[in-house]
Amino acid sequence: MTVTTLIKGGTVVSATGSTTADVLVDGETIAAVLAPGALPDLQPETTIDATGKYVIPGGIDAHTHMEMPFGGTNASDTFETGTRAAAWGGTTTIVDFVVQAHGQRVQDQVALWHDKAGGNCAVDYAFHQIIGEVNAESLKAMDELIGEGITSFKLFMAYPGVFLSSDGQIVQAMQAAAGNGGLIMMHAENGSAIDVLVQQALERGETAPYHHGVTRPWQTEQEATHRAIMLADMTGAPLYVVHVSAKQALARIAEARDAGQNVFGETCPQYLYLSLEEQLGARSEQWGDFEGAKWVCSTPLRSRAEGHQDELWKYLRTGDVTTVSTDHCPFCMKDQKELGTSSFAKIPNGIGSVEHRMDLLFQGVKDGRISKERWVDVCCTTPARMFGLYGKKGVIAPGADADVVVYDPNGHTSISVDTHHMNMDYSAWEGWEIDGHVDTVLSRGSVIVDGSGYVGTKSHGRFVKRDLSQNLI
Amino acid sequence: MTVTTLIKGGTVVSATGSTTADVLVDGETIAAVLAPGALPDLQPETTIDATGKYVIPGGIDAHTHMEMPFGGTNASDTFETGTRAAAWGGTTTIVDFVVQAHGQRVQDQVALWHDKAGGNCAVDYAFHQIIGEVNAESLKAMDELIGEGITSFKLFMAYPGVFLSSDGQIVQAMQAAAGNGGLIMMHAENGSAIDVLVQQALERGETAPYHHGVTRPWQTEQEATHRAIMLADMTGAPLYVVHVSAKQALARIAEARDAGQNVFGETCPQYLYLSLEEQLGARSEQWGDFEGAKWVCSTPLRSRAEGHQDELWKYLRTGDVTTVSTDHCPFCMKDQKELGTSSFAKIPNGIGSVEHRMDLLFQGVKDGRISKERWVDVCCTTPARMFGLYGKKGVIAPGADADVVVYDPNGHTSISVDTHHMNMDYSAWEGWEIDGHVDTVLSRGSVIVDGSGYVGTKSHGRFVKRDLSQNLI
Amino acid sequence: MTVTTLIKGGTVVSATGSTTADVLVDGETIAAVLAPGALPDLQPETTIDATGKYVIPGGIDAHTHMEMPFGGTNASDTFETGTRAAAWGGTTTIVDFVVQAHGQRVQDQVALWHDKAGGNCAVDYAFHQIIGEVNAESLKAMDELIGEGITSFKLFMAYPGVFLSSDGQIVQAMQAAAGNGGLIMMHAENGSAIDVLVQQALERGETAPYHHGVTRPWQTEQEATHRAIMLADMTGAPLYVVHVSAKQALARIAEARDAGQNVFGETCPQYLYLSLEEQLGARSEQWGDFEGAKWVCSTPLRSRAEGHQDELWKYLRTGDVTTVSTDHCPFCMKDQKELGTSSFAKIPNGIGSVEHRMDLLFQGVKDGRISKERWVDVCCTTPARMFGLYGKKGVIAPGADADVVVYDPNGHTSISVDTHHMNMDYSAWEGWEIDGHVDTVLSRGSVIVDGSGYVGTKSHGRFVKRDLSQNLI
Amino acid sequence: MTVTTLIKGGTVVSATGSTTADVLVDGETIAAVLAPGALPDLQPETTIDATGKYVIPGGIDAHTHMEMPFGGTNASDTFETGTRAAAWGGTTTIVDFVVQAHGQRVQDQVALWHDKAGGNCAVDYAFHQIIGEVNAESLKAMDELIGEGITSFKLFMAYPGVFLSSDGQIVQAMQAAAGNGGLIMMHAENGSAIDVLVQQALERGETAPYHHGVTRPWQTEQEATHRAIMLADMTGAPLYVVHVSAKQALARIAEARDAGQNVFGETCPQYLYLSLEEQLGARSEQWGDFEGAKWVCSTPLRSRAEGHQDELWKYLRTGDVTTVSTDHCPFCMKDQKELGTSSFAKIPNGIGSVEHRMDLLFQGVKDGRISKERWVDVCCTTPARMFGLYGKKGVIAPGADADVVVYDPNGHTSISVDTHHMNMDYSAWEGWEIDGHVDTVLSRGSVIVDGSGYVGTKSHGRFVKRDLSQNLI
Repeated sequence: MTVTTLIKGGTVVSATGSTTADVLVDGETIAAVLAPGALPDLQPETTIDATGKYVIPGGIDAHTHMEMPFGGTNASDTFETGTRAAAWGGTTTIVDFVVQAHGQRVQDQVALWHDKAGGNCAVDYAFHQIIGEVNAESLKAMDELIGEGITSFKLFMAYPGVFLSSDGQIVQAMQAAAGNGGLIMMHAENGSAIDVLVQQALERGETAPYHHGVTRPWQTEQEATHRAIMLADMTGAPLYVVHVSAKQALARIAEARDAGQNVFGETCPQYLYLSLEEQLGARSEQWGDFEGAKWVCSTPLRSRAEGHQDELWKYLRTGDVTTVSTDHCPFCMKDQKELGTSSFAKIPNGIGSVEHRMDLLFQGVKDGRISKERWVDVCCTTPARMFGLYGKKGVIAPGADADVVVYDPNGHTSISVDTHHMNMDYSAWEGWEIDGHVDTVLSRGSVIVDGSGYVGTKSHGRFVKRDLSQNLI
Repeated sequence: MTVTTLIKGGTVVSATGSTTADVLVDGETIAAVLAPGALPDLQPETTIDATGKYVIPGGIDAHTHMEMPFGGTNASDTFETGTRAAAWGGTTTIVDFVVQAHGQRVQDQVALWHDKAGGNCAVDYAFHQIIGEVNAESLKAMDELIGEGITSFKLFMAYPGVFLSSDGQIVQAMQAAAGNGGLIMMHAENGSAIDVLVQQALERGETAPYHHGVTRPWQTEQEATHRAIMLADMTGAPLYVVHVSAKQALARIAEARDAGQNVFGETCPQYLYLSLEEQLGARSEQWGDFEGAKWVCSTPLRSRAEGHQDELWKYLRTGDVTTVSTDHCPFCMKDQKELGTSSFAKIPNGIGSVEHRMDLLFQGVKDGRISKERWVDVCCTTPARMFGLYGKKGVIAPGADADVVVYDPNGHTSISVDTHHMNMDYSAWEGWEIDGHVDTVLSRGSVIVDGSGYVGTKSHGRFVKRDLSQNLI
Repeated sequence: MTVTTLIKGGTVVSATGSTTADVLVDGETIAAVLAPGALPDLQPETTIDATGKYVIPGGIDAHTHMEMPFGGTNASDTFETGTRAAAWGGTTTIVDFVVQAHGQRVQDQVALWHDKAGGNCAVDYAFHQIIGEVNAESLKAMDELIGEGITSFKLFMAYPGVFLSSDGQIVQAMQAAAGNGGLIMMHAENGSAIDVLVQQALERGETAPYHHGVTRPWQTEQEATHRAIMLADMTGAPLYVVHVSAKQALARIAEARDAGQNVFGETCPQYLYLSLEEQLGARSEQWGDFEGAKWVCSTPLRSRAEGHQDELWKYLRTGDVTTVSTDHCPFCMKDQKELGTSSFAKIPNGIGSVEHRMDLLFQGVKDGRISKERWVDVCCTTPARMFGLYGKKGVIAPGADADVVVYDPNGHTSISVDTHHMNMDYSAWEGWEIDGHVDTVLSRGSVIVDGSGYVGTKSHGRFVKRDLSQNLI
Repeated sequence: MTVTTLIKGGTVVSATGSTTADVLVDGETIAAVLAPGALPDLQPETTIDATGKYVIPGGIDAHTHMEMPFGGTNASDTFETGTRAAAWGGTTTIVDFVVQAHGQRVQDQVALWHDKAGGNCAVDYAFHQIIGEVNAESLKAMDELIGEGITSFKLFMAYPGVFLSSDGQIVQAMQAAAGNGGLIMMHAENGSAIDVLVQQALERGETAPYHHGVTRPWQTEQEATHRAIMLADMTGAPLYVVHVSAKQALARIAEARDAGQNVFGETCPQYLYLSLEEQLGARSEQWGDFEGAKWVCSTPLRSRAEGHQDELWKYLRTGDVTTVSTDHCPFCMKDQKELGTSSFAKIPNGIGSVEHRMDLLFQGVKDGRISKERWVDVCCTTPARMFGLYGKKGVIAPGADADVVVYDPNGHTSISVDTHHMNMDYSAWEGWEIDGHVDTVLSRGSVIVDGSGYVGTKSHGRFVKRDLSQNLI
């Protein structure tokens, strides 16, 4: 045995509870979890002192879009810059979306994504598959991908002509998933209705970023969410609704779950913290009213007066929000968001948060919104279970990959474009102060972030083949 | 270090997932959880081969009534016989109810219960406190008991004159719990309404055991459950509803949980498997129609035609049933149940299952009702969290008490009065065949059940002081 | 035929729609409803010109307490003063509550009420029966009263020791009603819980009127309402919940109605318009903080911030509020409300509105809250159906009693203690200005209010025997 | 005055209650409703003795498709045959659908429908407008039609390429209705999903009529219903969902109504009485398995085992089913239904019941499902209010059109193809025996059905311009 590292004296926090324990890492995996002092003869090569800190599984961000083409530009983080930023923030696995748009071949795109990510990642990565065109070939590819470790398939009810599947196509894809054990992920917004509202707003001269949110009212999200639930119920497919922001959509998800249906809701930090009102009021010297473009994403930010944020936290607490991902899809203001100065409809949709998810959610622990166990649960353990990574990822347990974060609950993190590591010329979270700090990060046994900063390499991260979901009820 | 035992080669099943790992026990606690072969130099004094088997936390039965006085007799299991039976069945902790009835002093009763249990238990035990009379003295005792490790308080909405608290008394006890952090447990049946129905049935000559269930219709349970929820909401107390059997009561619990309220539902194996119809049809040579007395318990068995059992399994799956306990309250047919041959109202209420809970629930895993992780969750981990035992109990983790069960998923268990170890002259589960078997049981590091049977001692079990609930949302 | 009166040229408003028609009154009843000019040869002795006005059925106030003993005093309106005030306000039938408190005999009380009302009423009157003590004798009386035209029975879940029925007693009374076709009316507040809160508030020195509302939180009303619904469901009795003020209680009623249960909700003008916040802020030179005593009633006024009032209007629109009555129970400030200057718990509960109900609800028509048809429905027609008066009362139809109101939608009414006709030394509605006015009132064919004011006599009103409810679903 | 007819001695049943009254008809309208004997000098030219019978407003069937083109054929009833059959059955007004399919002009179609109906109808008729293609021209036509008395607009979520509107188009049409006061009627089935299921069934060789229902599962109806509700909520349009057959769809409607939204549900006799199971079992000598084609309609018949029929009756009772229409769309088996012998997808959709609605619903009165008042309400009064006909139609009141039915509650009606008057070679209700009978029918004062049968003329019926809905909450 080559004992490499002993993480010592910390509080190991799991989804169910916390214990004082040492974690022994041997090579790339966890060899043992030990009562302090249990094996006094152990002679680890390295020791990390975690006294007074939390030792948690590395974060899993199950929703990222590195280098994604969108509206004539590409998300500004490459796999290299994006995974490095993830590492800084205690996220040791990302699940990125391979994109098949209308007219593309799934397997070509998978190959392309492997090319983009391979050799460039600071942390491990896996893939979901976007099925932008459901047809005989893509349906066949869904079966094939299960064997290749890509076991979840995202469909869109928005973006007609690019990604949108008709309800008939959704039925077919869901039938395929019900058959092969895959998980259907859904972007649930009624794109057909939204496009009419957008067009009407533009005709009225309502072109500012804020109108992005106004033209995607909660009814379009609740509607699509319910539609997806019904089609899933009809076909027997499990359903994971991505980036839920409307409380009414979550109420439908909660209702389906109470009825025993395998339906899951994901939300993102922006929906927990930010609001449409703040977007409306946003202006700056540099960007004027267009400042609000920084928070243009879909689903949109919701009204605080309507109480969405508090309800999302509640559902996060009760479990009807299953996971928190970032939907990391960064665009710079310069040259990218700017495409929409004359029309919000041309603003590339997306916010970059892959670096901040663990911190932002830990603030919820500090604020008494959730327990620290639930923090680990929604950021690490349940994403692993949800997406067939558990055992390897998402848990501090012998045999698991040694993806470990030492988190300092008494540390502090300031967020700013001046200090963040994402390839963005602004921060959606500028000026946020967090009562916690990522101290040390190990990825498969290697320390990639230590007190002095990022010490990893871009060739470290590997593609992870995923099993079927381990989280179905 | 005195390494005593290595449990080797098994699959460690936790509430969130399963891994292949060895468990190292040192004295009374778990010293380490190890990847197989991780520390080749380990020289345990004893090795238990768990190959092909599940290694799980010892079961926690959070609802037992050993030696409980009821209707002029006493529950037939003493702490000695009851905890020995528990050990046979893989349950290594019971939480029994100290009884304060009208006119009794709480602290006197606590002392009495310590006397009854002390030195007589095969496994560890803890106490809840029944507050049968809410008054200034018992309210004061609630605060005191928190410090003594008795952190949950059961109230009754049934049994007027013995245990029933008025709604005003419930408010006061809930206020006390909201203040001291205790958990309110509720027997939620509308006793005032039930007593009228019982009296009317008896006047009509409906005296057979089956009428016990008929005179406690689901409305009396849904009503009381909702009432408890409202009073808990008003006072801010967390609420744990014991032995829920009506699907409508669970629907109210689910609704409150969706609203973010700290409300929890417990059910028991009898409500998951048995039904009012079967009780109606029960007859035997020895007991005739009175055979049904074997299943007289409160809340009662519910109608299968109305679908309660399937709904309970569903809620167990979705998490709105938080825990499964037994409400172990055994009475023999001879001399005990017999008290009610002329009137079901005189039949001592209770079923004995402390020995069979782990097996009966594992059958649910085999039947595809729940996952094996959820089995561990509802039988071991969540009871520990719910009742402030987590860390010590309910989890296979370093530092925890070495309460460990090696469970054989391919074993077999036949249930019968001829072979069970509870002090009962019948089995409520006579003839049941289970696809699983308790192989080996350790309590605080000592093997108390091995392949040959029970090898423990009655002085082994200790009183466990409990913390406040670790499971609030 | 002795044609006496032709009400001519008005718009006859019914619960379902409006038509231009003349109403021919012959003696005490309506002889015909006619198209204008249909029978040109008609020679009525009197003609009332209703051009530009609404012709509607006389109002039915199904909830009054004339001369009711409460807390050591009596409601300040006698049948004489109260029914005269009703007449002024367009109400031509009241249904008053015969009170049986603990220890009293039902039939004695019925006789007493007949004595009090007989020969003293300006308009017709009927009785409900309060069953304050459910026992063999009062259960028997319930059967007898059906034949005497008293077909509804009110129970209390509040006021222990005076009116409160235990749940077991409620079950018995409901069984009786299910058997004889009577209607159970319920005062749904959890009196046992409230009494504890009241006692605690007083111990904290919170004695001002506002605390009356604070100590009766919505949970105590939702709880009791749900309890009543469950017991009604169990026994098969129809249920009418009086004076609902909490939106959560109405949500339970709506839920039961959706499930097809015969459950009905009544509200009162004070709950539609007034709020706890206004009571909190109330003070005057004369009464100081005690000003709030004017609005002490049970159920209490609810918080506007919580949105009860808007929800009540909504449910009134959707039909889940079935009727609007006043719960007219007037007490003067001097010598009566004053009893509670040192403790809100001693303030006689009640508000007087019998004179203003038709006007206050018509303001809802003017405000766009409800249609004029729904106004007639909830104030006249449905109360008649609900309480077995339809045919005689509640409708402009041939054969019906000629209880008719000519209402001027363009008139104006100012409410003040200086101008009202109730025997009260203050008005709960002081300073309210209503966009409508009662023009002319006929009771059984006699004009009792004309342009110049009240022209009736105290011996005109008669006791009306009621049939069973005609409004069950 | 030319008094023509006195309908004497009957019980006038309205939506709110019943009274004994005579109805005086003068020319085309009702001149008076009279207490029996009120005007002894009246000398009517004709007297109809209604003693022992109900006198009710003529039925309004708000959903018919006379001569409608569908799948290459036409509904087999012309306006002549269809309205004559309606007259036989006590229906004195139909509201038929002008059809604009993709590629057609609305105003052309309105003209066409006026041509088809004009001079050919036994009873009065009005029109709804189907908007099969929402575009600038049809949106403009919606505004125009309001002034022409066509105030309701039907959209389809099924039948892609013929009638289906995209959600964006639905939004536009709803915005138009929200603006002009019109009512949106919705065929709520998810056509896109259904078409996939149909195609898959046919590929599996499941071609028999029964598979029509199987391929339109309740989820496709609940989904579309909820979608329509959300879009209506978003745009502020009132929504009337036609021919609801799934209980889950009605649950969504009930939920929206409880929330105060203007949403209405229509059902049809076939959904109240017939079931998918019966369609499955249907076979005959002549048609074999194809017998089931007689009941192929959309929405389809639903499973009795799932309890849809009982739930529909319940919602009819509670008011969440607002109206009962027939969706009369008759096709003969020969040459028409036969088109689908090789594929259920080619069977023209529709059932003919215009003649039997009043009787079939009266059977519900006899069976204790609804009161006779509710029968009049859902068949006559509320359809009139819903569709802007009240005052003229739907009520027995002075000034209203004298559309009156004398209905014999003790009569009897046998339904059979041999005796019915619809132009169909089969009856969907063959062999049904009804405990009631249409005795006499007046349309605008003319007797068109008397004891001997139909005595009307095809030129009697006139087009009725409708107002905006009078039934919004």
